[in-house]
Amino acid sequence: MQISNDSIHALITDLGVRARAASRFMARASTAAKNAALLELARLIRAQAAELKAANAPDVQAARDAGQDGAFVDRLTLTDQHIELMAQSCEQVAQLPDPVGEMTDLRRRPSGITVGRMRVPLGVFGMIYESRPNVTIEAASLAIKSGNAVILRGGSEAIHSNRALAGLVALALVDADLPADAVQLVPTTDRAAVGALITLPQYVDVIIPRGGKGLIERISAEAKVPVIKHLDGNCHVYVDAEVDMDMAVRVTDNAKTQRYSPCNAAESLLVAASSAAAFLPRIGKVFAQKGVEMRCCAQSRAVLEQVPGAGPLLRDATPADWSAEYLAPIISIKVVDGLDEAIAHINRYGSGHTDTILTSHHPSAMRFLREVDSASVMVNASTRFADGFEFGLGAEIGISTDKFHARGPVGLEGLTSQKWMVLGNGEIRT
Amino acid sequence: MQISNDSIHALITDLGVRARAASRFMARASTAAKNAALLELARLIRAQAAELKAANAPDVQAARDAGQDGAFVDRLTLTDQHIELMAQSCEQVAQLPDPVGEMTDLRRRPSGITVGRMRVPLGVFGMIYESRPNVTIEAASLAIKSGNAVILRGGSEAIHSNRALAGLVALALVDADLPADAVQLVPTTDRAAVGALITLPQYVDVIIPRGGKGLIERISAEAKVPVIKHLDGNCHVYVDAEVDMDMAVRVTDNAKTQRYSPCNAAESLLVAASSAAAFLPRIGKVFAQKGVEMRCCAQSRAVLEQVPGAGPLLRDATPADWSAEYLAPIISIKVVDGLDEAIAHINRYGSGHTDTILTSHHPSAMRFLREVDSASVMVNASTRFADGFEFGLGAEIGISTDKFHARGPVGLEGLTSQKWMVLGNGEIRT
Repeated sequence: MQISNDSIHALITDLGVRARAASRFMARASTAAKNAALLELARLIRAQAAELKAANAPDVQAARDAGQDGAFVDRLTLTDQHIELMAQSCEQVAQLPDPVGEMTDLRRRPSGITVGRMRVPLGVFGMIYESRPNVTIEAASLAIKSGNAVILRGGSEAIHSNRALAGLVALALVDADLPADAVQLVPTTDRAAVGALITLPQYVDVIIPRGGKGLIERISAEAKVPVIKHLDGNCHVYVDAEVDMDMAVRVTDNAKTQRYSPCNAAESLLVAASSAAAFLPRIGKVFAQKGVEMRCCAQSRAVLEQVPGAGPLLRDATPADWSAEYLAPIISIKVVDGLDEAIAHINRYGSGHTDTILTSHHPSAMRFLREVDSASVMVNASTRFADGFEFGLGAEIGISTDKFHARGPVGLEGLTSQKWMVLGNGEIRT
Repeated sequence: MQISNDSIHALITDLGVRARAASRFMARASTAAKNAALLELARLIRAQAAELKAANAPDVQAARDAGQDGAFVDRLTLTDQHIELMAQSCEQVAQLPDPVGEMTDLRRRPSGITVGRMRVPLGVFGMIYESRPNVTIEAASLAIKSGNAVILRGGSEAIHSNRALAGLVALALVDADLPADAVQLVPTTDRAAVGALITLPQYVDVIIPRGGKGLIERISAEAKVPVIKHLDGNCHVYVDAEVDMDMAVRVTDNAKTQRYSPCNAAESLLVAASSAAAFLPRIGKVFAQKGVEMRCCAQSRAVLEQVPGAGPLLRDATPADWSAEYLAPIISIKVVDGLDEAIAHINRYGSGHTDTILTSHHPSAMRFLREVDSASVMVNASTRFADGFEFGLGAEIGISTDKFHARGPVGLEGLTSQKWMVLGNGEIRT
């Protein structure tokens, strides 16, 4: 059923008003109540597994009927394993420390007042995502724990699944004496709902989109509220002049080939000129064995041509390759003079996601850490570690490639900010 | 001279390209070089005092000729005292700790990697301000210390003064072997320059406007980059049921009358019903003596009618008064049932700037701190303390009434963000 843009706007505004009211309640909710809701949600997810699969079935059928590919159908399907993982994720979030109310940096000022900071929820966030229904539970559980309200706008492909899941979230909230409006699902699949949701600064404090680069660029361009946006991950491995070659081969291999599709997989390999002759034949052999296409500068190609079996996988890199996010068994390779050129290349062509230096030279490591302008900078570790769980956040609502507010993996803390608190004893300003 | 919008866009883009390049250099500049530039700037400002006053003269004359009021001309005029204060402010910023490169929260993860955070500059910020030329020096000095580049867009009324000041900044930067492009002044007074500056996300990371609410609302609505925005300050004093009356009178008086024009002056007084009979006559007497107009609810008016001399200053409050920022000897006064109504009233009608509770009841103090959703929340202290210097930031680039990224007074730290750093020993993801 198509409804008018005015109606959509009124509908989203109503969700916004209710979310704002619920956010006041959530901001002062006790940790115990929030954890009780999360544990009840885990219980309900397990208890209602059959109902969830029944709700999911028409979504899966529609996707198959529409000729969607296997990967799409897989992301959409709620198996017993997915359902158990959703329940476990709620339990894990319940176990995380509550970020709300944390008081830090208290110090006495010459005027006599004590000034400090208190961590508080952002308020209301809008979550816009595509086909994976488990994001409904991830976003709901992180909203509850961080004391925010959330408005969920999942993909139309998963609407039946999302409605069923959102229904369980509402039950869990009410069971814990928390407002059901703290987690609301946009009930319509009309695309105009997204446009309304991202242009209501009085009711929505921040938008978190998850999906393809096109979706995120569109949302960022049109939003009237801040967006925690995750664009592409063109991650670099730089092999420095002084380096343990065994370690360099092992880490580069892992960064590129452990999995090809994650945003933290390496897409570009830079090699210091003095390491090229020793390093490139060894990594070229690995890539050749694994069928990784190598898009090379002239200098690296000259070395790699000598590697048995590599020939059919070698291509000349074009300028577009230095900026490319392949998410596939392809890597761009460039020989650079050394650290200066590597840093300049990464800051020019990289996407500010994750970059690593492999080196045994301490000053190079420190300069790389300081000067590479990316959300995650690493020394002697695989780019694949850039992840909220690996970093110890306990959960991840998204990854930010921006610098404002939050950079890199965003956990509960990224859904909060700090206000100032002043403890006085009747002080006045003179 | 009017130039075309295309030319303006090209001009601002050029400034942006140069600012971005300079920001890379500034991000890795040593603390010593940044401080050397700040001290040289202080020296130049003092040495060139006569030249600065000469550059300022045509701006002041033009403002007088245009019939601007005395306050406007005062803000625009560079006196010997203003010049000395500008020089001192540069010296003070030089003495602040360098926020860039600070490493925190390092912890070992089960995988073997050590994960931590490193504070880094935001990159490039755009500063849009009105007639006060000293903002040119404040913004420049904070940009230099925080390792950012800045594009300055001062008011057309101060263009000659700002050009002279920006010239000194460039000299000081070059003297310290830092890029002059780290601080650039938009050379044209064309209004289209603002529109261009706020819509170049590839070159400008954040906009900081200083000025009237109209200017800031317009910039926020049109910007394509984040804005650290300071809207109005409708600050509340809530006098709780249990309170030291002498303290309550002293602090309320200070919050309202110490100065009327600052954004952290109180505009609204809430009084718990059980304190009204004891408190209102005393504060009413103070306000009557100082000529402060009182816009009252029926209940507070009934009490205040009894105060000698208050009568002519009493008005019935309209709903608009609860939201008003007067910046004048006017205050709205309302009797509330108690803490719950006070918190609800502040969260509904306040502007999220600064609110204080005057109480001797600890649970009330803690609830007020947690539940009032404002940038600065206080207990038993005057709202007038909400200020970067009073809070110990050492400097203030602006005050944020937003929740995203920074809340309240914004100092050097607000011009930075934290990236993730990973120190490994050849770890790979399995």
